[in-house]
Amino acid sequence: MSDFRFERHALDGNARAGTFHTPHGVIPTPVFAPVGTQATVKALTPAQVAELGASLVLSNTYHLYLRPGHELVREMGGLHAFMRWNNPILTDSGGFQVFSLSGINKKDNDGVTFKSHIDGSMHRFTPESATHIQNALGADIIMAFDQCPEPYDRAMNELALRRTHEWLVRCQNAHQRTDQALFGIVQGGTFADLRAQSAEFVASQGLIGNAIGGLSVGESKADMHAMLEVVCPILPADKPRYLMGVGSPEDLVNGVMRGIDIFDCVLPTRLARNHAAMTRRGRLNIRNRTYFNDPNPLEADCTCYTCQNFSRAYLRHLCVAEEMLAASLLSIHNLHLLVHLAAEMRQQIQQGTFQPWADAFLANYTPTQKQT
Amino acid sequence: MSDFRFERHALDGNARAGTFHTPHGVIPTPVFAPVGTQATVKALTPAQVAELGASLVLSNTYHLYLRPGHELVREMGGLHAFMRWNNPILTDSGGFQVFSLSGINKKDNDGVTFKSHIDGSMHRFTPESATHIQNALGADIIMAFDQCPEPYDRAMNELALRRTHEWLVRCQNAHQRTDQALFGIVQGGTFADLRAQSAEFVASQGLIGNAIGGLSVGESKADMHAMLEVVCPILPADKPRYLMGVGSPEDLVNGVMRGIDIFDCVLPTRLARNHAAMTRRGRLNIRNRTYFNDPNPLEADCTCYTCQNFSRAYLRHLCVAEEMLAASLLSIHNLHLLVHLAAEMRQQIQQGTFQPWADAFLANYTPTQKQT
Repeated sequence: MSDFRFERHALDGNARAGTFHTPHGVIPTPVFAPVGTQATVKALTPAQVAELGASLVLSNTYHLYLRPGHELVREMGGLHAFMRWNNPILTDSGGFQVFSLSGINKKDNDGVTFKSHIDGSMHRFTPESATHIQNALGADIIMAFDQCPEPYDRAMNELALRRTHEWLVRCQNAHQRTDQALFGIVQGGTFADLRAQSAEFVASQGLIGNAIGGLSVGESKADMHAMLEVVCPILPADKPRYLMGVGSPEDLVNGVMRGIDIFDCVLPTRLARNHAAMTRRGRLNIRNRTYFNDPNPLEADCTCYTCQNFSRAYLRHLCVAEEMLAASLLSIHNLHLLVHLAAEMRQQIQQGTFQPWADAFLANYTPTQKQT
Repeated sequence: MSDFRFERHALDGNARAGTFHTPHGVIPTPVFAPVGTQATVKALTPAQVAELGASLVLSNTYHLYLRPGHELVREMGGLHAFMRWNNPILTDSGGFQVFSLSGINKKDNDGVTFKSHIDGSMHRFTPESATHIQNALGADIIMAFDQCPEPYDRAMNELALRRTHEWLVRCQNAHQRTDQALFGIVQGGTFADLRAQSAEFVASQGLIGNAIGGLSVGESKADMHAMLEVVCPILPADKPRYLMGVGSPEDLVNGVMRGIDIFDCVLPTRLARNHAAMTRRGRLNIRNRTYFNDPNPLEADCTCYTCQNFSRAYLRHLCVAEEMLAASLLSIHNLHLLVHLAAEMRQQIQQGTFQPWADAFLANYTPTQKQT
């Protein structure tokens, strides 16, 4: 019997509430996964990540392969033991990073040769090696090695799609562990026909779960939504759907509305290090002079450790004084917001009240304008 | 009745075990106080500081006066509420920082004019203003404004001693709150006669507690010990004795042996940010290649969160990858070591076994050489 099982509890429009069972525990869906790129969610202990309510954490194959090396992680008992996150972990394949982070890369049909962003040394990933590295890391969910091109370049997307599909089959053949679920990735840029073709191919592989890549990479929100509306109905309803690298509050709501179950993004922790707080109304730049003597928490009624304990005035002081605690406390709040937003959507779906709730949420939310 | 009371439970040689009662709770002594210079123990939440066992935290009048300003802290309910440390707090007077941190300072008998290290603006501290700023911050223990000269300059020490004594009387007259204990500070550099004279003067003021300043500022260990042996017997036995700015493991043991009750130092958190771990045998530079695949905790048998969860290999990875979590986890360990070393000395004193325990500790400890 498989180590993995996806239960669907409720459907509300296209939004789904479920539970994904993995070898390291259950993931209630919809879910937002904090990103621990280098085997740590930046500025937080695993105890703090657990306390804010996370069930799934993402880590990064490209980074861990380069440093400290997947063989070391395997020798130390795998990624769960190494970083002391005993709940589910997902690793991405490194496909995105070899294109976006390494200054030089050379793609061919067999794989990608790339230059380390750390020391300039040359390395090569193939579907087989990216899968074997993830087998060594030992995450519960691992990702196929794919190619993610510019969203509006049709020729590149056609080429990348062929490779991504061929590579998916090679990843499946290379994959060695039944206690890890390999997810395939739908590509196709902003082209509905390519997205449909890709979703059909990925769906036909009978994987434990399926992912959508190549979104939130520069395309418009309207295009992102349109692509989700093409892809989600084609992907099997009884498998979890993961929208990679997406993580603003409004994107979570828009994704769930269209049938997405799993999200991850560096945004909440990156904003925290840049002293921005996410709220259900929009972002706050907490360094702003406005907050100098503001005794209120970041967000009224928020139950996170930060909001339960600290004023905006104190957080502003930490930011201005360049104290590391600013990043920790803002990361706790921002991650708590997204993790609990996902949990709230799950509840709304189970109650059958998701759509009006989502409409009200989006009406109150200002995505781009920062509050001051 | 006073808000403060010092109970002595046991004496073992010159070492004392006691309990200092303050408005925000009890401080078991000997005690090591983590330093939260800018109203935060760097890289740690107050919950983490409490969890590692700290009872008393120090903060800094010079820094808080400049940023965010003592009036803001008062407006936000005082330092305990502002930084959410509901246990005892001690603030130093800023005397040390106006000399050591501000590029330009001009001393006279009335006070010190100094340049902010943040923006170059000019400011002035007098005994009265330093006391009133501390009254606004609201710490349980506040310090007299003093002058701390080079330890081997006799003429400067004679002049500074006269000022420090005059300023102590002015601080006592300026002090406005009975829920804050003003401690006087013994100066005198490395000169036994000046130290004796200063200890006699400070002792004669009948303060709630007494401190020894101007040590661990460049003098030899032998001179530090000699000065403690001059000063401690003169300071009243029924009042707590605080050795300012001292905090290596061997200095704690040597201080307690000579009658000190309270210590503070930035060393454990500063070393942590520089990737050094304190242990009961000496320091480890955790970035060292030796630890690449070391599955052991920093220190065998240590009960801190870091040692209970993480390998040296993982900590080395965090340091090499320049992750903020490295500073947090090493700070937890280093502070836990000193806080629990103080607690262990208290127990040894209560058992009457302190001296042989201290001899064995110092025989096993290598103060300067780093282990690799």
